[in-house]
Amino acid sequence: MSKQKPGIPKGMRDFGPKEMARRNYIFNTIQDTFKLFGYQQLETPTMENLSTLTGKYGDEGDQLLFKVLNSGAFLKKVDSETFKAGESKVLPKISEKGLRYDLTVPFARYVVMNQNEITYPFKRFQMQPVWRADRPQKGRYREFYQCDADVVGTDSLICETEILCMIKRVFSDFKLNDYDIKINNRKILTGIAEVIGAFGKEADLCVAIDKLDKIGWEKVKVELKERNFSEDAIEKLSPILSQNEKNNVGWLQFLKKYLAESEIGLKGINELEEVFSYLSKMGENQHHVVFDPVLARGLSYYTGAIFEVKVNGVGIGSVSGGGRYDDLTGVFGLKGVSGVGFSFGVDRLYDVLEELNIFPDDEVERTQIMLAYFGEEEKEACLGVLAALRKEGIAAEIYPDLVKIKKQFNYAGKKGIPYVGVMGSEELENNTISLKDMTSGEQESLSLADVVKKIKKV
Amino acid sequence: MSKQKPGIPKGMRDFGPKEMARRNYIFNTIQDTFKLFGYQQLETPTMENLSTLTGKYGDEGDQLLFKVLNSGAFLKKVDSETFKAGESKVLPKISEKGLRYDLTVPFARYVVMNQNEITYPFKRFQMQPVWRADRPQKGRYREFYQCDADVVGTDSLICETEILCMIKRVFSDFKLNDYDIKINNRKILTGIAEVIGAFGKEADLCVAIDKLDKIGWEKVKVELKERNFSEDAIEKLSPILSQNEKNNVGWLQFLKKYLAESEIGLKGINELEEVFSYLSKMGENQHHVVFDPVLARGLSYYTGAIFEVKVNGVGIGSVSGGGRYDDLTGVFGLKGVSGVGFSFGVDRLYDVLEELNIFPDDEVERTQIMLAYFGEEEKEACLGVLAALRKEGIAAEIYPDLVKIKKQFNYAGKKGIPYVGVMGSEELENNTISLKDMTSGEQESLSLADVVKKIKKV
Repeated sequence: MSKQKPGIPKGMRDFGPKEMARRNYIFNTIQDTFKLFGYQQLETPTMENLSTLTGKYGDEGDQLLFKVLNSGAFLKKVDSETFKAGESKVLPKISEKGLRYDLTVPFARYVVMNQNEITYPFKRFQMQPVWRADRPQKGRYREFYQCDADVVGTDSLICETEILCMIKRVFSDFKLNDYDIKINNRKILTGIAEVIGAFGKEADLCVAIDKLDKIGWEKVKVELKERNFSEDAIEKLSPILSQNEKNNVGWLQFLKKYLAESEIGLKGINELEEVFSYLSKMGENQHHVVFDPVLARGLSYYTGAIFEVKVNGVGIGSVSGGGRYDDLTGVFGLKGVSGVGFSFGVDRLYDVLEELNIFPDDEVERTQIMLAYFGEEEKEACLGVLAALRKEGIAAEIYPDLVKIKKQFNYAGKKGIPYVGVMGSEELENNTISLKDMTSGEQESLSLADVVKKIKKV
Repeated sequence: MSKQKPGIPKGMRDFGPKEMARRNYIFNTIQDTFKLFGYQQLETPTMENLSTLTGKYGDEGDQLLFKVLNSGAFLKKVDSETFKAGESKVLPKISEKGLRYDLTVPFARYVVMNQNEITYPFKRFQMQPVWRADRPQKGRYREFYQCDADVVGTDSLICETEILCMIKRVFSDFKLNDYDIKINNRKILTGIAEVIGAFGKEADLCVAIDKLDKIGWEKVKVELKERNFSEDAIEKLSPILSQNEKNNVGWLQFLKKYLAESEIGLKGINELEEVFSYLSKMGENQHHVVFDPVLARGLSYYTGAIFEVKVNGVGIGSVSGGGRYDDLTGVFGLKGVSGVGFSFGVDRLYDVLEELNIFPDDEVERTQIMLAYFGEEEKEACLGVLAALRKEGIAAEIYPDLVKIKKQFNYAGKKGIPYVGVMGSEELENNTISLKDMTSGEQESLSLADVVKKIKKV
């Protein structure tokens, strides 16, 4: 073959009918809950100005941004001097736009641009793909979907509580039973650092503590020393790490004493207790909600609650996470927009549901009946039946070409169509349809009205 | 303000809650019909290899492709010699990927890559954005959505008929009554060219004839001469253009005589008649279906039926179109894949429905009830009510902060929430809710169960 075999860019995927049906099931389930809680949908363009994107995701993020070449004569602004000066000088001359890297920055940009039209508190959800020029590997793609919900313009802890409720509802809809919603509060982390005499070093603290499960307390101590924590600080930290408390109430009681000297730490505890109190007033228990005093996603960003959700028993990372922030839009010149939000990772949820084999059976929206026929005359009769079935809202197909009946059945079988209505000379004469149940193999002769009844009942 | 005001790239748009609800209404309406007719969803990646895209859309298309800069050290393959050689030499060194330009080429690429797994006839639909670096103008965007349905692997004219049925169904769902589905067959165009002695010049013929309405027959004659049509050819064409036939049957009768000497022309007429015959067997009339013997979209591509749909009375171009092709995938090395397909332009349909003011009123999926309260104690009582409402599947919100009741009502008003449930000390005592209908202004005191009943009934 002289033509090049076509492929797709690495880290990207086609989604055929089965994958699409399963992905739509995930999107619809999440969306139903977002809407039930009063969140409204927003979509932003695939491309943003690079001035909007760069500097928002750290140096690594800037590297991983997909940049779009200016259209038209893209080299016209590049003289040979600029060329010699290298990539950092050439880039701004040939590219002004990049692909969406997450849903948060475009949301912040939207809020700033529409600040006077928006009704606050503004509850928005967004389900769109993002792109990152990461090294592709199992479970990590260069194009993947995020589902975010954020509310901005309020400090109410009801919002945090509702996030817990939304996560619980979505997971319950997915029939996921064994999972943990880890929750912490940035102020507690600050308090711990304060109490051990390492104020402002929460970031280092968390990186080290995060390895406790893997490397043990002795090695964590070594790491803390390397990160310039004093012997005294490490000693003072010890009660937290040797604490075997698994219970949220017990943890909070312990921390109230431990953080007694830290105003901000106590405030963090109060906030958490308020969330738990709201949760119970909403008729929800703390099942699945696990307080973790060293949970610390994206420290630099969050100022209050921090969430992270993992499904137990599958080797897949966190499937959801989020937290409260004080300043979403400051980087775009609008101060004082605080809020709280969280995100579901669709691709990881897909992997979880697949690994646990709990996708619903009927997730593919299949054609409900195919009409098969033996000859031209029967084919034409089928066309009327076909139209009648569709008028009843029944997804119906006819095999378009007059081929052997076996081939027609093969098509229905491969496409997973549950019923085949056969039309032969006898059926034509009696004004009936032979309806074959493709699962049981049973066949019965029915009037059109009875076929409609039967299929609608399924 | 020191910070730069953020904007979005030209020709691109944000979609807020109202626009999203309307767009989803369009997508869902179209999708329902596609599924009813047995089409299954496919999605392809935003980026394709440039080798897949270039050369498929003509020179202009290649210019309008958005190209993505290679990630990492994008200049590493560009030496100063290449740089001096100019854009055409530099481009392949710095960019390997481009953004999807339409849904057809990625579909063809998908069919070739999955040719052995696909069940034929393969009926797929696809609803995704495409990107073109066109000059932005009213109604023309650089990011816009297409909704395509194609069936490949069959020559059956039932497929063409079903396309007519799908268009009629979608338009009926939209409550669009005044529109024309223009239909032609490429073979008829070939036949006309043959009969006037200008075989192979269909393209030139159509470009000239297309202007008939605007410039009149005398000027079209001039243009035909300029395009090297002989006096004799122009003379022979005259009966077609002076034909005042508005009726499909009349036209076909006329053309049967006119094209009597052209085998291919007569085949085109036969095909059209077969489609009309199938249409009537499916219980559909030819209302809205207008045969136009000089309709010629994308000539080089189509080999059989050609469709184009315009809504009358609005100054908006065609909102749907398509046709039959003999060779979808030849360019990727797979011969013999024929099919027929069509596409809805979502952005134009949006404009049409807006201009005609026929979007359904309740298209925004609004929160159904907001809870308002006078104090902390009432707020906490509201939380239980809120949870109960949501358990019933009622989209419900609470204003998260304790503010003046007027501000809470303002929020509900701006968000278009139809009911507000007010909780004051009296309600708390009597275990009731004061339900205010935001449209009528009426207020009544109800139990929670009655609130649920009332809202579910709406």
